[in-house]
Amino acid sequence: MTTEKIRVDAEKLISFSMKALQGLGVPEKDALTTARILVASDLRGVDSHGVAHLKMFYAKRIRLGLINLNPKPKIFSRTPSAATIDGDQGLGFVIGHYAMTEAIQRAEKTGAGFIAVRNSTHFGASAGYAMMALEHDMIGIAMTNTIASVVAPGSTRSAVGTNPLAVAVPAGQESPFVLDMATSVVAGGKLEIANREGKPIPEGWAIDAKGKPITDPAKRVRGEGGLLPLGGTPTFGSFKGFGLGVLVDILCGVLSGSSASILWKIKPEERGNAGNHFLGALRIESFLPLEDFKKSMDEMIAAFEALPTLPGIKKVYAAGGYEAEIEKDRRANGIPLNAKVIEELQELAKEVGIEYDL
Amino acid sequence: MTTEKIRVDAEKLISFSMKALQGLGVPEKDALTTARILVASDLRGVDSHGVAHLKMFYAKRIRLGLINLNPKPKIFSRTPSAATIDGDQGLGFVIGHYAMTEAIQRAEKTGAGFIAVRNSTHFGASAGYAMMALEHDMIGIAMTNTIASVVAPGSTRSAVGTNPLAVAVPAGQESPFVLDMATSVVAGGKLEIANREGKPIPEGWAIDAKGKPITDPAKRVRGEGGLLPLGGTPTFGSFKGFGLGVLVDILCGVLSGSSASILWKIKPEERGNAGNHFLGALRIESFLPLEDFKKSMDEMIAAFEALPTLPGIKKVYAAGGYEAEIEKDRRANGIPLNAKVIEELQELAKEVGIEYDL
Repeated sequence: MTTEKIRVDAEKLISFSMKALQGLGVPEKDALTTARILVASDLRGVDSHGVAHLKMFYAKRIRLGLINLNPKPKIFSRTPSAATIDGDQGLGFVIGHYAMTEAIQRAEKTGAGFIAVRNSTHFGASAGYAMMALEHDMIGIAMTNTIASVVAPGSTRSAVGTNPLAVAVPAGQESPFVLDMATSVVAGGKLEIANREGKPIPEGWAIDAKGKPITDPAKRVRGEGGLLPLGGTPTFGSFKGFGLGVLVDILCGVLSGSSASILWKIKPEERGNAGNHFLGALRIESFLPLEDFKKSMDEMIAAFEALPTLPGIKKVYAAGGYEAEIEKDRRANGIPLNAKVIEELQELAKEVGIEYDL
Repeated sequence: MTTEKIRVDAEKLISFSMKALQGLGVPEKDALTTARILVASDLRGVDSHGVAHLKMFYAKRIRLGLINLNPKPKIFSRTPSAATIDGDQGLGFVIGHYAMTEAIQRAEKTGAGFIAVRNSTHFGASAGYAMMALEHDMIGIAMTNTIASVVAPGSTRSAVGTNPLAVAVPAGQESPFVLDMATSVVAGGKLEIANREGKPIPEGWAIDAKGKPITDPAKRVRGEGGLLPLGGTPTFGSFKGFGLGVLVDILCGVLSGSSASILWKIKPEERGNAGNHFLGALRIESFLPLEDFKKSMDEMIAAFEALPTLPGIKKVYAAGGYEAEIEKDRRANGIPLNAKVIEELQELAKEVGIEYDL
């Protein structure tokens, strides 16, 4: 396996991804929305949730007919600050973008907007939706529940998904605060990467069906054992990680009218496709003059970055600060794609009949 | 030190606490509100945040003049679902109760209500406020930021408070979901308990000024080293715990117009008194018919409780389930108070000139 990486211009990558999605049958506007959110992940260094997923994840599912390319999402709203959306099995990016836009519009009028979404599909990284709030000077919140792969404290059966939650908060001169975290010790992708690279994983990420730590990621068996919730063990607060995971399940699954993932009956080919989301926005000006808020955010972030560090640590980052530095570099110098991803994109181009021009 | 415990009736304990607070100068209505929230913690088994704090924590601060017993909190609201409250240095319980009531009223009309609170004081356990939403069939959210005592990943200087967050969600037949967690591996109280009992603490709860694990809780020096954020180390997700702690700082400190705790200048006697809060409510009926929601919650909780367990584990609880069992016992059989707490309450009774009748 080669580790050579080629730098690709972000705008070109968006344009290519858009055309590829159109080639798969996604309408132009939706293809653009999706391509932008995908590449936004690559720009921030979250390579696991960007174009690397385009062929084997989204294109595959579109071809399997698991995604409705012309969805008619329905919105149910009984009060000005809250609504539920049925995503009609549409592409998660499109439904997520629509729902977050609705949340932001509600927050513009009332100060807060929250949308629970059912019957959507995988929407990539949660941060992309939370960050939509930033340009509106709002705090953005995004979560999604996923198939159960994380054990409950005291059990060895998967009980909740890695259920990520993301929050984005604007600052002034400093980079925005952007927290995007699985509620497990690590997301499943970390085990997949270790597996691909033939590397062991630390004790404390996952356990087997007997509750013993797994260090060989290849030994992980779906449905037996699972990832550990954030905190790892009860002594170190695993009930907190589990509780946060269940909270995401409640807001995305239960509140939307779907259900918690422990109750899902999913066919193997549909694994990873299911998506219920919870999206929210809080309008900062409804609480505090915006200028005061941003100044206070800047002071806080600067104080974190000025903290003395342990040997070998460059500086302390507030969430999102490190990713903002990566984005600056990648916007200027291109997004590094590895040979495997490029090969897949080339194959995809051929399959859908577009030119590979990256 | 004796470990003997005496069971005390909850209603009697509320009545006694109320009279003691009135004796300290707290107006009748506020004393009742405070007593109820304090004893609610004891009922749920959260002994660290109940009447054990009455004398040495709240009475002490009231006498030091650190709490305004006749506050005139001001509310600033520019939009229907959001507001900021200046607590006028009032008793945290009173200000927190007022703010949560405002959040609930807003959610009743719009579906969502969020209140950021500055210039309040210590308000006990966050769960008490989140749980106020339950009887209104809402999801309740409560957070507070506290003096910095938790290190940032990569540093050994305290950067955020233990910054707890609580969420309460109603169910049908099952106990409500109630998550109330410090965003550090453990709350500071766990080190104080170990210290009192002369017991070591596990490696992974706290570090010293050089970044080495502390196992002797007596060796903890305020301002040097600190508690570890949930996750513990970067390998196990400490940036997540730190990120959650900073998020609580943003919502309570920055959004309310106070500031993140890393910027606080606090006199030693004011430690633990400061309080900025963030309180929220989401009206379930605005998203989904209530009956459907509660049924789905019950199914989820029942599925967790039916999970097979590791040897020695009775059952898996969703957050709040264990505390609900304790509450049932304590409502029926009284709240066990240890000799030290009883002694303090007897002293307090004498000091404020009321009868000790527990």
